Amino acid sequence: MTESIDVHTHIVPEHFPAYPGAGRDVPWPRMDHFSCDHAHVIVSGRNYRTVTRNCWDMTLRCQEMDALRIGRQVLSPMPELLSYWFPAEDGARMCRYLNEQIQQMISADPARLMGLGAVPLQDLDRAVLELEFILAEAGLCGVEIASHVNGVSIGDARFEPFFAAAESLGAAVFVHALRPAGKDRLVGPAALEQIVAFPGEIGLAAASLITGGMLERHPRLRLALSHGGGALPVMLPRLEHGWRLTPALQEYMPRPPSSYARQLYCDSLTYDPDTLALALRTFGAERVMIGSDYPFNIRDRDPLASIAALNLSPAKQAQLHHFNAQRFLTGA
Amino acid sequence: MTESIDVHTHIVPEHFPAYPGAGRDVPWPRMDHFSCDHAHVIVSGRNYRTVTRNCWDMTLRCQEMDALRIGRQVLSPMPELLSYWFPAEDGARMCRYLNEQIQQMISADPARLMGLGAVPLQDLDRAVLELEFILAEAGLCGVEIASHVNGVSIGDARFEPFFAAAESLGAAVFVHALRPAGKDRLVGPAALEQIVAFPGEIGLAAASLITGGMLERHPRLRLALSHGGGALPVMLPRLEHGWRLTPALQEYMPRPPSSYARQLYCDSLTYDPDTLALALRTFGAERVMIGSDYPFNIRDRDPLASIAALNLSPAKQAQLHHFNAQRFLTGA
Repeated sequence: MTESIDVHTHIVPEHFPAYPGAGRDVPWPRMDHFSCDHAHVIVSGRNYRTVTRNCWDMTLRCQEMDALRIGRQVLSPMPELLSYWFPAEDGARMCRYLNEQIQQMISADPARLMGLGAVPLQDLDRAVLELEFILAEAGLCGVEIASHVNGVSIGDARFEPFFAAAESLGAAVFVHALRPAGKDRLVGPAALEQIVAFPGEIGLAAASLITGGMLERHPRLRLALSHGGGALPVMLPRLEHGWRLTPALQEYMPRPPSSYARQLYCDSLTYDPDTLALALRTFGAERVMIGSDYPFNIRDRDPLASIAALNLSPAKQAQLHHFNAQRFLTGA
Repeated sequence: MTESIDVHTHIVPEHFPAYPGAGRDVPWPRMDHFSCDHAHVIVSGRNYRTVTRNCWDMTLRCQEMDALRIGRQVLSPMPELLSYWFPAEDGARMCRYLNEQIQQMISADPARLMGLGAVPLQDLDRAVLELEFILAEAGLCGVEIASHVNGVSIGDARFEPFFAAAESLGAAVFVHALRPAGKDRLVGPAALEQIVAFPGEIGLAAASLITGGMLERHPRLRLALSHGGGALPVMLPRLEHGWRLTPALQEYMPRPPSSYARQLYCDSLTYDPDTLALALRTFGAERVMIGSDYPFNIRDRDPLASIAALNLSPAKQAQLHHFNAQRFLTGA
C-alpha cells in the first residue's frame, strides 16, 4: 500500500516571479491568493483556474497522500504552465523556474516525492539543455511534455533531437493532453475542452509517435501516456487493420502498430474499469501505472480502488501499484 | 444468416451528370472508368479514390453479399459525396441525384437492398425538403449525415430543424465520420486521415449530440454512429465523471451522459472483439448492428465473424444480426 506510486499529479508554484522578459503580451502567469487555501492562476488578466493549497504545500500534500494510501507522488507542472507558446527565451525561463520549484518541493520529503520537469519544446536546443539540467542538477526523473507543440504532434520528425536526448539520458517522458484537437467541435460549456476532448487528443499524440516512426527509432525511450492512453486503444485495431492493407504505412512502421503501443506506458486515469481493462490489454500489465490527476477537480478520488476494480492477481496488482512506475521513472 | 443486415455499406454512382450550376471551382465529381471493373472518382482534377464495380453494379453486389452471408445491405453514399461544402443549390442537386441513384439501385433487388440518402445540411430548409423527398418519394429509410458540417458538429443547435424533422418523419439517421478533427495532428502518409482520425471524430460528433442537448430534446430520434461509436466509449466515463462535478454541464444534460448514449445505435466496425465488446456495454445489446464499410478497402471482410467473436447467446446475436437494424431503419 505505502509503496504505491501515483505518476500523474500536478503542482502549481505558490508564486511566480514578475515577467522577466522583453516581449509584448506574453501570457506570463501570476497567482492571486484570494484566501489562505485557494488562489486564482491569472493568465492574460483572467482566472485560468482556481487552485488549492495542496498545489504548492507539500506538508498538506503528504497528509492527503496518507488518506489516499499513496506512498509516493510524481510531481509535474499544471500542463498549461508548459508555455510552448511563449518566445523561446521566456519559455526557457518558465521551465527553469518550474524545475527549480519542483526540486524544492521534493526536498520537503524526498522519500515520498519525485518529479517530472518541463522543457521549452518550441526551441529544441534549449529543450535538450534543460533536460540535461533536469536530470543532472535538479534530480528529477524526467519531463512532462504536452501532446503537441503549438499544433504539431510530438511524433513529428522535428522533435527527433529531444527524443534522442531523452533516450540517451534515460529520462522518463510523460505525455499529457493539452489544448486538444477538436475543441472547435464541442457543443456546450467551456469545461468540455478537457472533459470531452482530452482522450482523443492523447490518442492522436500516441498515434503520431507510432506512425511517424519515433518508437521504431527509439526502442529504449521510456514514454508514458496520460488518461489511460485516451482513445489509442480504440484507434489501434483500425490502424493495425489499415497497416496490413497499406504498403505506404509499412514503410513508416516495419512492425505492426500494436507492437509499438506495447513500448508505451500509460496511467490508470480512465474513470471506468472496462476502459482501464482495455488499456491493460493494449499496453500490457507491465505498462499501466497509477495516475490520479491530483489535486485537480477532475481527479480520480480513489485511484487504488480503480485498480482494485480490475480484480488482478496480487502480483499483477503490485506491478500496477509500483513496479511499473519504478521502471518507467528510473529505468530499473 | 440470410436475415443479416449490414447497415454500413457505400455506393458511388456509375456516372455523374456534368456540373449543372453556375459556381466557380465547385469540386463537382466525375467518374473516370479506366477499366471495366474500376473507376477513379475525380474531384478538382485529382483522383479522390479508385473504386470498384460493386459500387454501382447491384448484380455483382448481391453475389458478393451471398459470399459474405449478408441478407440485406443498406446503401449510403460514399461520404465525400455529401457535398456540404458546395453552394447550397449545387449541394441540393447532388443530394437529389444521389437519392435517385440509390432508389434506382434498390429497384434492382428490393428484397435485399435498402437505402439511406443525403441531404444538403449547409441549407436547413433544403435539407428538410430533401428529407421529405427521401422518405415519401424515394422510398429510403432515412439519411446518412457526416459528423460535422463544414467544421460545425452536428450537435450544434443550428441543426435543430433537421433533427426535429427526422424525429417527426421517423427517418433513420446514420452519422458517418468525414474530414476528421485532428487531421493536422497526424504524422505519416495521407491515408492516416481516415485510418487514425475517424474514431476520435465520430466520438466528438456523438459527444456533441449528448452535451448540446439534442438527444434530450429528441428522445424518439433513431440515430446510429459509424465505426462502433469510435472513441465515445472511452470518452464517456470521463464525461460522466465531469458531469457529476460540474453544475454547468447538468444544465445542458439533466440525465447522466451515459443514459443518452443508450439512445444511440452503432455499427460493429471496430476491427477488434474487445473494442466491440466495449461498444456493446456502452450502447447496449439492443443497439449494435452489423456494419462493414463494404466495398471499400478498409472494410471488415467478414462482419459476421466479428459478431461471432463476441460469443453472444443466439438471441443476442440475432439482435445484432438483424433485429436492431430493423428497428433502427424502420422504427418497428
